[in-house]
Amino acid sequence: MFEAHFQSFDDAPEGAASAPRVKALRTELARRGLTGFIVPRADRHQNEYVPAADERLAWLTGFTGSAGAAVVLMDRAALFVDGRYTLQARQQADLSIFAIEHLVENPPPRWLEANLAAGDRLGYDPWLHNVESAERLAKACVAAGATLVAVEADLFDAIWPDRPAPPLGPVKLHDMRFAGEEATAKLARIRGEIGKLKADALVISDPHAVAWTFNIRGSDVAHTPLPLAFALIPREGLPALYVDGRKLSNEVRHALAPLADLREPAALPGDLAALGAAKKTVRLDQATAADALARLITAPGGKAPRGPDPIAVMKAVKNPVEIAGARAAHRRDGVAVVRFLQWLEREAASGKLTEIDAVEALESFRRDTLALKDISFPTIAGAGPDGAIVHYRVTRKTNRVISPGLFLIDSGAQYEDGTTDITRTVAIGESTAEMRERFTRVLKGHIAIARAVFPEGTTGAQIDPLARQFLWRAGLDFDHGTGHGVGSYLSVHEGPARLSKLGTTALQRGMILSNEPGYYKAGEYGIRIENLVLVIEAPPVEGAEKPLNAFEPLTLVPIDRRLVEIGMLTAEELHWLNDYHARVARELAPHLDAQARAWLQEATRPLAVA
Amino acid sequence: MFEAHFQSFDDAPEGAASAPRVKALRTELARRGLTGFIVPRADRHQNEYVPAADERLAWLTGFTGSAGAAVVLMDRAALFVDGRYTLQARQQADLSIFAIEHLVENPPPRWLEANLAAGDRLGYDPWLHNVESAERLAKACVAAGATLVAVEADLFDAIWPDRPAPPLGPVKLHDMRFAGEEATAKLARIRGEIGKLKADALVISDPHAVAWTFNIRGSDVAHTPLPLAFALIPREGLPALYVDGRKLSNEVRHALAPLADLREPAALPGDLAALGAAKKTVRLDQATAADALARLITAPGGKAPRGPDPIAVMKAVKNPVEIAGARAAHRRDGVAVVRFLQWLEREAASGKLTEIDAVEALESFRRDTLALKDISFPTIAGAGPDGAIVHYRVTRKTNRVISPGLFLIDSGAQYEDGTTDITRTVAIGESTAEMRERFTRVLKGHIAIARAVFPEGTTGAQIDPLARQFLWRAGLDFDHGTGHGVGSYLSVHEGPARLSKLGTTALQRGMILSNEPGYYKAGEYGIRIENLVLVIEAPPVEGAEKPLNAFEPLTLVPIDRRLVEIGMLTAEELHWLNDYHARVARELAPHLDAQARAWLQEATRPLAVA
Repeated sequence: MFEAHFQSFDDAPEGAASAPRVKALRTELARRGLTGFIVPRADRHQNEYVPAADERLAWLTGFTGSAGAAVVLMDRAALFVDGRYTLQARQQADLSIFAIEHLVENPPPRWLEANLAAGDRLGYDPWLHNVESAERLAKACVAAGATLVAVEADLFDAIWPDRPAPPLGPVKLHDMRFAGEEATAKLARIRGEIGKLKADALVISDPHAVAWTFNIRGSDVAHTPLPLAFALIPREGLPALYVDGRKLSNEVRHALAPLADLREPAALPGDLAALGAAKKTVRLDQATAADALARLITAPGGKAPRGPDPIAVMKAVKNPVEIAGARAAHRRDGVAVVRFLQWLEREAASGKLTEIDAVEALESFRRDTLALKDISFPTIAGAGPDGAIVHYRVTRKTNRVISPGLFLIDSGAQYEDGTTDITRTVAIGESTAEMRERFTRVLKGHIAIARAVFPEGTTGAQIDPLARQFLWRAGLDFDHGTGHGVGSYLSVHEGPARLSKLGTTALQRGMILSNEPGYYKAGEYGIRIENLVLVIEAPPVEGAEKPLNAFEPLTLVPIDRRLVEIGMLTAEELHWLNDYHARVARELAPHLDAQARAWLQEATRPLAVA
Repeated sequence: MFEAHFQSFDDAPEGAASAPRVKALRTELARRGLTGFIVPRADRHQNEYVPAADERLAWLTGFTGSAGAAVVLMDRAALFVDGRYTLQARQQADLSIFAIEHLVENPPPRWLEANLAAGDRLGYDPWLHNVESAERLAKACVAAGATLVAVEADLFDAIWPDRPAPPLGPVKLHDMRFAGEEATAKLARIRGEIGKLKADALVISDPHAVAWTFNIRGSDVAHTPLPLAFALIPREGLPALYVDGRKLSNEVRHALAPLADLREPAALPGDLAALGAAKKTVRLDQATAADALARLITAPGGKAPRGPDPIAVMKAVKNPVEIAGARAAHRRDGVAVVRFLQWLEREAASGKLTEIDAVEALESFRRDTLALKDISFPTIAGAGPDGAIVHYRVTRKTNRVISPGLFLIDSGAQYEDGTTDITRTVAIGESTAEMRERFTRVLKGHIAIARAVFPEGTTGAQIDPLARQFLWRAGLDFDHGTGHGVGSYLSVHEGPARLSKLGTTALQRGMILSNEPGYYKAGEYGIRIENLVLVIEAPPVEGAEKPLNAFEPLTLVPIDRRLVEIGMLTAEELHWLNDYHARVARELAPHLDAQARAWLQEATRPLAVA
């Protein structure tokens, strides 16, 4: 009945045939006078999702996780993964070739310092590392008496016979009724920032920023409508947009022509070198700018200062049209998720429903909106113990029946008017007192964020602990941030603001973030309650001395009332929950059929102290 | 009747005769081929309180604030102070000579970059800047085409005729019944850290750390029992303690001789140069180590890596004897403060009592304990509008009558068994509803910290927002951290832990911090409620998955119940306050006379919802 178009359930391949590939790499290294090479999981833009052509790490090592790196020396090799992936790496990699190392505790530079020999020549692709990463590698090499060698050509072209072609996803215009601000206006603001930074030009290396600036979207990577592209914005004069011409229809080309000189990506190095030769100052994004970009500018004598991408904050602060779009997208998404939850409650009773069934159904309900462009990430559907695995992805092999207990489902959609991301944890049959008690602690944290009022200038790091205090009191916590920024028909993980210990960016009105505290009991169940929230001006307060902000929930889906221990909520918390549910019912009911509407009425019925 | 021995009420001198002094400095610079000089308010240890001989900045500019710097060039000069001191600097400095600049917004390096001419030679005393500060100056000079020149000799010796002599406060042994750990054991732990840091030796440049390590105290600066001294701890072999021999009695010398080679401070440069020549790695404290120390080691070829002082955390974590001492000190101090508050309530009714009267009385009650060694900082006694000035220090000129409204008094004591720091805000006559409402918001923040339960590894930055949430909701906040670390018969401001946005150090059991949220209404009144708290293991929680910590209040003094709006407190908050007051009454009553005991009983009577 249902099916998933945007997500596969294939098991990760095991036991890759790495031996001949590593051998081919070593032969190629020897040919080039190198004694080692580092292979990150990265493309030229430091993207979260990378195109198949950039899956060098997976091809070489068999490891298919979303973060990692390998170092191949002549007599040894190591694969670096973080705690999430240790098990998976051991299953996927050939352990007779690769030692598995911890990406965070023993990162490549540290490992290199200990394993390189004096005189070694370690190669790296300067397009796949940002400047900071390259500097760390260089330092490690120096410490070991070795040399770091930039290899401009892509070594893998020579050794990867059936390498996929780079993607050529068509570029589409992002209509003003979604974008809300003309590209010309955005470019004027960006030029103002370039002036403030005392630079002659800015390289946009983050394709999200390219997409936002020029009001375009693409389809080069999964789940995020990105066009892989660079741009170069001079303080004065016409910008250049570096994008493969085969991605541009005549219509798109026509619309973009007045905004930018449309150039092939192969022209970028020469253009940067020319600016360098003219001793210009070209500003780079410290996070996404490849080391190669900096080298192209500085080699002929230019300056390439790095810092936060000035576009990141502009993009994070949504304009009124984007905000209206986000509200519409969340209403639409809420209808789909409510239909799913009603279906789930009915069908799970059979005791036969699986995690994959749930993922397929949810995507199908979303496709029923006729507006779904993609899911915003692979749905995390965790029944029982699988819910305790924070980054769980169901496969045919791990697929579990949704049996009595808790079921956690974290999912999102890409609509042209907005990106969604929602987690609900629902009771299947009877829940235990412990589950309800912990669910309620997570809920209290969620409500503490939702109800927070805070002065302008407050950072996400200052907000994050409010979500944890009730868990802390019980000796519990969750091992991830409380929230991340979310794009507007862009990435579901968007900087620079976040609700976490590391959230040093001030929260500004118009930013959209997730509010997703959780609790995970390994081997038993997981709890997470996630709404997206919009930073808004707080309602006026008599006597206030500072401009105040607050959060407005965008997500409109009931929170499972059967899991709430009412006695643990304060009057204010109960009031918030009942208010939220009343709003969910009011906004969604008109768009539901009678059966779903009846379910919604019950699911949003006010809770009252007995 | 009462008097203050440890605090003066002299007004800051105005309109210093800077002209001849600046002229003398410029002549001396010219003689040495320099075109400018930077004069920080600093001694060789980056101390908070500096000896009179190091008050170069005050002598040159007239400015007597606790932080600042001056730059004198041949044709211009600037005095840099922070926001607290802008007004005072304008009153004290000769504005025909010094431009007043903002120390934070336009710090010396930035100003130098704009004001130095190419070819200028800027002098600095490498003993008065840490390495980072010197590096920033060097960078600014390079950017301006100028040269930074280290001037090893103290220029001021030549131009400051009646310069005070360096202090020779006698060094005293800090008895084991206060210190709780033998210096030999501390040295063994320090050597372990030196080994972990892969260094050959450690320079202790922070005299607090010298005092802690060798279980000694001194009296070289005000309010903190510091002996100005350096130490050099080799990974193996006898440490060297660099201290002026005239500070050492035969008894002290005898006790220290087995622990360290007692050397004159003048021997330090040669000893460091010898280590450098032997290519040793000598670790420096990044915060307090003077640039001169690094230069002495690196010039002949040694390594001088910098990092956090490993002693800082050891010193911050109090041992059981220090904790018992802190409890005793706070009981003793509580008795003195309660006697003061009872006296204040009786005497303020006359309408004639002044801020200075209060300061004198409080110090006198503390001296009555017969254990007072010093106050831990100049008492801040702010009646009405003066309470809104966070760093207020009363002088003969600013002295104000304590009239109806709020009176804020922030003070502390140095006892051999512990250092105290307490702020109480009390109602004088009738308070307004607004005062009570805001007092109660501050109190709710104070209680949120006092009641916090948090997993091991939690930082002060994560705790700080809990104190602000109730003020934020009303559009209010306070412009300082929530708390700072406190030493054990050492500095009342001790690192590395703090409760503030900048508190990145994990809170550990045994640390003592202040809990002092506030609210300040400029021109009207100030509110601050401060207790010292000890980080302890939280009472066991059923089902806890992590080791949990909590705070135990050390300070034992009633919080003014007349200012509490009971209806704004939750049941838990009311419970905490009543419990705290019951404990205060129980612990202090036995040490009070009948009259004070009666006052205490009333001041700690349980509050109940009407």
